[in-house]
Amino acid sequence: MNIIQGNVCSAKGFKAFGDKTGLKKDKADMAVIVSEAPCIASGTFTTNVVKAAPVLWDRDKVSNTIYGVVANSGNANACTGEQGIRDCADTAQALAALIGKEKENILVCSTGVIGVNLPMDKIIPGVEKVYNGLGDTYDHGVAASRAIMTTDTVEKTVAVETEIAGKKVTIGGMAKGSGMINPNMATMLCFITTDCAVSKEMADKALKAAVSDSFNMICVDGDMSTNDTVLLLANGLAENKEIDTDGEDYNKFYEALCYITKTLAIKCADDGEGATKLIEAAVNGAKSKEDARKIALSVVSSNLLKAAIFGEDANWGRALCAMGYSGADFDPMSVTIDFRSENGTIRLMTEGVPIVFDEEKAANILSAHKIYIDMLLKEGNESATAWGCDLTYDYVKINGDYRS
Amino acid sequence: MNIIQGNVCSAKGFKAFGDKTGLKKDKADMAVIVSEAPCIASGTFTTNVVKAAPVLWDRDKVSNTIYGVVANSGNANACTGEQGIRDCADTAQALAALIGKEKENILVCSTGVIGVNLPMDKIIPGVEKVYNGLGDTYDHGVAASRAIMTTDTVEKTVAVETEIAGKKVTIGGMAKGSGMINPNMATMLCFITTDCAVSKEMADKALKAAVSDSFNMICVDGDMSTNDTVLLLANGLAENKEIDTDGEDYNKFYEALCYITKTLAIKCADDGEGATKLIEAAVNGAKSKEDARKIALSVVSSNLLKAAIFGEDANWGRALCAMGYSGADFDPMSVTIDFRSENGTIRLMTEGVPIVFDEEKAANILSAHKIYIDMLLKEGNESATAWGCDLTYDYVKINGDYRS
Repeated sequence: MNIIQGNVCSAKGFKAFGDKTGLKKDKADMAVIVSEAPCIASGTFTTNVVKAAPVLWDRDKVSNTIYGVVANSGNANACTGEQGIRDCADTAQALAALIGKEKENILVCSTGVIGVNLPMDKIIPGVEKVYNGLGDTYDHGVAASRAIMTTDTVEKTVAVETEIAGKKVTIGGMAKGSGMINPNMATMLCFITTDCAVSKEMADKALKAAVSDSFNMICVDGDMSTNDTVLLLANGLAENKEIDTDGEDYNKFYEALCYITKTLAIKCADDGEGATKLIEAAVNGAKSKEDARKIALSVVSSNLLKAAIFGEDANWGRALCAMGYSGADFDPMSVTIDFRSENGTIRLMTEGVPIVFDEEKAANILSAHKIYIDMLLKEGNESATAWGCDLTYDYVKINGDYRS
Repeated sequence: MNIIQGNVCSAKGFKAFGDKTGLKKDKADMAVIVSEAPCIASGTFTTNVVKAAPVLWDRDKVSNTIYGVVANSGNANACTGEQGIRDCADTAQALAALIGKEKENILVCSTGVIGVNLPMDKIIPGVEKVYNGLGDTYDHGVAASRAIMTTDTVEKTVAVETEIAGKKVTIGGMAKGSGMINPNMATMLCFITTDCAVSKEMADKALKAAVSDSFNMICVDGDMSTNDTVLLLANGLAENKEIDTDGEDYNKFYEALCYITKTLAIKCADDGEGATKLIEAAVNGAKSKEDARKIALSVVSSNLLKAAIFGEDANWGRALCAMGYSGADFDPMSVTIDFRSENGTIRLMTEGVPIVFDEEKAANILSAHKIYIDMLLKEGNESATAWGCDLTYDYVKINGDYRS
C-alpha cells in the first residue's frame, strides 16, 4: 500500500469540484462528486433518533446504483420536516438531470445550522454551477474538500494505492469534522471514492468495520450530530476481479480503507473546534474489546481531562476518574498510566499507586502538540485506541456564537 | 413545611464548625459535624469504578451508629492506595477519641486533588482544632459549609421545619459541588442532618429516592467524581414517633428531605465551575420516566447547548439534537420546544416543525440568569426535570490549571 497525495479525485473515473453557491457568505459551500461509471455505494449514518433529511434520503437510496453526490455546508437540512425531504429530492434531481440519470441514483449530504429549510433558490443553480466546474485533478478534489468545511480550519483529504489481484486500486477520501463530533457513528461527513471492484456486501462489511475503529473512536465534544454520514462509492474501473468474499483481496482492500478512515478521523479530532492539541488514548490489557473501547473513549471525552491537557497539566487523576465512569469493568489497583509525547514519557501511576513525578518533565512532555495517554490494565488482552482534542476557550467562543 | 434560615446546625443536637488546617493556602479546609445523640446514617455514593478511600470507608461504616463526620477539602484522598484507607481510619480515630467513641462511629469525606496522600501531619491536629470550635449556631454551620468548598464560589445551605406526629422536626443540609458534577450519583459532597426519629430502612429509602430526583438530575460537566457522597444523619431528638413504615409521617419527612436535596442540587448546578447561567430542562409527555430523565439530562449535558446558552444564542436545534442522542425513544415529529425565562417564553419548534422566531425577543429571554427549556413530547405521560449550567471560558480556565 502506498500513501499518495490525493483525494476523492484520485481513483479512476471520479470527478469533483466545490464552489460558492451563496449558502455561506463568500465561502465555498457546495461540493459535487460524480462517477463516470455506475457505483455500488455503502454508508454509515448517525444513530441519533433525530436524523436530518439527507440521512433519511441516503439511507433509503444507498443500495441503488449511485452516480454522484451533492454535499452542501452552511445548512444541515435537519429538523426541517417534510419539506426537508422534498428538498433532498429536488437537489438530487438537479444533479441527476445534468448527468442523465434519475434522482434515485444521487446521494445528498448537508452540514451546518439545524432547523432552517434549504434555500432551494440557491441550491438548484448552485448544483449546476458546481457541476460545470467538475474535473479529475488534485485541485478539483481539494476544492470539493474545502466546500464541505464548517468550522474546520483545514481541509481533510487522503489517498492510497494498493495492488489487488494484479491491478492497481486507488482509494481517496475527504472529510469534514470540527464540532458535534462524537462516536457511535460516522460522526461527520466523509466521502470515500475508489475504483476497486467490490461487491455491495463486502463494501458494507469493510466500511462498517473500518468506521468502528476510526470515526467511532473519536470525540471532540460528546455531541452526536443529526447528520453524521460516511459514504463509500466504488465504480470498479480498476478492473480487478470483483471482491465478493473474504480472502487476500478483501484484506488488502480493507487495510487500505482502514488507513483512509483512520487518517481522516484523526484529522477530524486534531482539527476539533478550538483544539490546540491532539490526544491519543490507548488502552491495553482490557477484559474485552468493548471495555477497551469504552475506557479509551471515556478518557478522550472527559471535559475535565481535555481542559487539563489544554492547560498542559499532568492531571492523570482525571484520566483514571474517566476510566472509572466509562462503564467498563476493571480493578483500579491494576491500572498503570503513562503520559507520552515526542518529548518523552512519564509514568504517573503504577498498578493503582500514584507516582511522585517531576513536574518540569511532565510540563515538557505536555508542551507537545500530540499527547499520548497509555493505560495498561491487567484484566485481559484486549486493546483499543481513541482520539480527541483539548477543550479550549476557543471551543466556547465558537459555540457560544455559532449562528451569527 | 417551613423553609428556615439554617444549615447542618439547625436540627437539635448537632454541632458543626469549619476552619483552616493548612491543607489549602489560607482557606478553611476542614469541616466537622457531631451529634450529641447516636445517629442512624444513610448514604449514597459514586458509582464510579474508581472510588476514593473515604467512599470505601463510609460505605463500610454507614450502617453503624454514627456520631460525627470529618470532611476536608483540598485533597480528595482518591487513587491513594492502601495508605488512603489507613488515613481515613486515622482521621476517624482522631475525632472518635475527642468525643469518646470508636473510629467505626465516624464517617469521613474528602474533596480536592486526586492522587496525593492526605498530609496526616495537618489532618490530625486539624481535627482537634476544628473540634474545639464546634457550636450549634447558624454561624457555626456556615463555617462548616465554607470549609468544604473547592472551586465553589458560594456556600450552599438550606433548612426546613415540618411537623411529624405532633412534633417539630428539622432538617438542614450543606453541599459542595462545582466541577466533576454528573448524575448517576450523589455527584458531590452533601451532608444532611435531622432530629427526626426514622428507621435506618426508611431513611435509606427516602434518601435514595430524593437523590435520584435531585443530585442525580444535575450536570455541570459530565465527569462523575470518584468521591461523590450524600450523607444523612438522623439522631431522633425531635422525639416524634419513629418513622418505620410508609404513611403520612414518612411522606412528610420525604417531602421535606426532597426540598433539601433539590435545593442543594440546584445550588450546585447554579454554581457550576465558571457558570453564568442556570439551565432547567423539563420534559413532559415521555413514554417512560426513564426516557424523560434521559432526555432532560442529555440536554443539560450537551456542551454545544451549554455553550450556546452562554452565548445567549437560541440554538434550539442543539437541544433537539441532544434529545435525539439521549438513548430515549421518541418521534422527533412529536416534539415541541419552548425557551423561557423571567423575561418571557418563546416557542421554537411545534411538533417537529421549526418556527421562525423573533431573534430580538429570544435574545431578551436568554439574557436572564435562569433559562428554562421546556420539551413536550406526545409519547406518554411521564416527566422529569434536570438542571445544569452554561459552558464558559471560565470553566476552561478553572480546569486548565486546577492543580497549580
